[in-house]
Amino acid sequence: MPIFEAEALRKLGLDLFAKVGVPADDAALVADHMVDSGLRGHESHSVLRYPQYVDAVRNGLVKPGAQMEVVKETPRMAQVSGNWNFGPVTATRATKLAIDKTRDGALAVVTVRECNHVARLGGFAQLAADQGMIAIICCNGHGADYSTTPFGGMERRLPTNPLAVAIPTRREWPILLDMTTSAISGGAMRVLRNRQEPVPEHCMIDAAGQASADAEAYYGPPPGALLPLGFPMTGHKGSGLALVIDIMAGALSGAGCTREDSPRDGNALFIAVLNIEAFVPMEEFLDETERFVTWVKSARLQSGFEEILFPGEKSHRISEERSKAGLEVDDVAWAQICNLAAELGVALPASRG
Amino acid sequence: MPIFEAEALRKLGLDLFAKVGVPADDAALVADHMVDSGLRGHESHSVLRYPQYVDAVRNGLVKPGAQMEVVKETPRMAQVSGNWNFGPVTATRATKLAIDKTRDGALAVVTVRECNHVARLGGFAQLAADQGMIAIICCNGHGADYSTTPFGGMERRLPTNPLAVAIPTRREWPILLDMTTSAISGGAMRVLRNRQEPVPEHCMIDAAGQASADAEAYYGPPPGALLPLGFPMTGHKGSGLALVIDIMAGALSGAGCTREDSPRDGNALFIAVLNIEAFVPMEEFLDETERFVTWVKSARLQSGFEEILFPGEKSHRISEERSKAGLEVDDVAWAQICNLAAELGVALPASRG
Repeated sequence: MPIFEAEALRKLGLDLFAKVGVPADDAALVADHMVDSGLRGHESHSVLRYPQYVDAVRNGLVKPGAQMEVVKETPRMAQVSGNWNFGPVTATRATKLAIDKTRDGALAVVTVRECNHVARLGGFAQLAADQGMIAIICCNGHGADYSTTPFGGMERRLPTNPLAVAIPTRREWPILLDMTTSAISGGAMRVLRNRQEPVPEHCMIDAAGQASADAEAYYGPPPGALLPLGFPMTGHKGSGLALVIDIMAGALSGAGCTREDSPRDGNALFIAVLNIEAFVPMEEFLDETERFVTWVKSARLQSGFEEILFPGEKSHRISEERSKAGLEVDDVAWAQICNLAAELGVALPASRG
Repeated sequence: MPIFEAEALRKLGLDLFAKVGVPADDAALVADHMVDSGLRGHESHSVLRYPQYVDAVRNGLVKPGAQMEVVKETPRMAQVSGNWNFGPVTATRATKLAIDKTRDGALAVVTVRECNHVARLGGFAQLAADQGMIAIICCNGHGADYSTTPFGGMERRLPTNPLAVAIPTRREWPILLDMTTSAISGGAMRVLRNRQEPVPEHCMIDAAGQASADAEAYYGPPPGALLPLGFPMTGHKGSGLALVIDIMAGALSGAGCTREDSPRDGNALFIAVLNIEAFVPMEEFLDETERFVTWVKSARLQSGFEEILFPGEKSHRISEERSKAGLEVDDVAWAQICNLAAELGVALPASRG
């Protein structure tokens, strides 16, 4: 697999997107988001998506340069439309709007519709933590995107409806929870399928509703379904989280909850930002959080574990390593990128390895 | 087991609490909360707690009649102290304050400290749904209350840190998610211990960190620990939820996160209320939610299931049944209540069965 400097892959993204008419500032948000996802170990949301995102512009799903539009607004709330620009562009701007609306108060909420696939939800939540705030973000599939069965069912009715929470700390990393409410994410399923590896227990069922470790039985036809987090014994909890997230993101944004006849998929977002200083002085908050981190990490370890990690800690470490060592791109993805670059007349970066 | 009318058990609570100096309005909130918990099938938070709550007054842990105090306040936020009145009293008043603060806006947050055990978190969230609003409430153990290990650990470091979300619907029931972020709740463990029944798989470990189905191995000595929701494969998700809830409830309220040297337990709360009408017209929201409920329920069923239930739907049905059939009180709990009533000179209600 070729290895590249993160900066080289970022520039490649800018060049590719420019060729299909994406304004430079939008292209930078998308390329940054994808390179950052790769640095943090989220290959499924990394530069392998460049060809897909370029195609989305060419087939009209993405409207490059579309302005985010505030549909409804009060001092502490806004409902915005992304007008089908790139998801990471809209999600970044909407989160920044929520941060701005929170700055002189305690909290604000921004909901988002007409927004394409946002990729890594945690990346937007982190924008708030970088400003010393807390963000809680969840999304549905803009009324479509069917992957997961509700608890008790055997058919796809829901997306993986993820939740991200970012909280600043005194450490080098913010706490960054970024989880699907299904037992496994769609990205992880794709990776297992490509590698022809078995799917872990309690993650999916086949079209007959039977437990299966075969990723192909999820994709079908006929399609199987992902199971909710906590299945089997506490699958009602994962399912319950998915259901309330669908309503928070879908109904409050105006995009709609998941339904049979949805015109197209994307992501509808619910973004809440809390200003810590409206509650407690920042130093006090950080002291308390540091004490908590230390206390939690002091637990004796179960066999097979080397330490207790907080959400986001592992991906921070991977990011530190890859910033030095470079980013690997798998051969299949790289071949696709090379074809696209040749077609568009874009120069390829030199590989480091 | 004797069976009583809900109203008779409610009056019994009022009489018992009056004898130890609890003002009538506070006593009504506590008795209502406990009878309602019993009606909804949450025996562990029902009238069997009357003796414990009376004792908490007599030993000084509960300050009956203490006023809720607003420590810090802006138009959309408040930080309150319950001054160690009964938990359900403080949680009810704090949630009502959050609802009032949301009425002419989009959302508000109230955090709570110096608050005793609140019992059933969902009961407070439902107050918002009854007003056509959405509530998101979470709590920690006021810095103490150790039951659950973080993912990778084998020692108690966290409470079961529950989350409740209530959303109004067109049905007879609001959506009412009320879940611990541990694989099993403390109340469910007590029930299994009392019945000498095995603990389901992936819920707990013994003091040596080994899987166990023996509730006594959780209580010890030496004590075991509850496992996070999703253990083993996705235990990092349940653990991640527990960690962010601990900070939201503990650090933003001023009560503090879970720590080694906490002076006493109780519940610190984070209560967020959203005004649906600030986002979308209520009729549109209810139409969308109804369409979603119908869509989710239309999935074919996995074997062993009779229907797909939304969070709160089952407990609503139990409540409907018990409102007619009466509330059973188990013999051990009833004997304790009888002793207490005799001691305090309170008349007992007649049993129906």
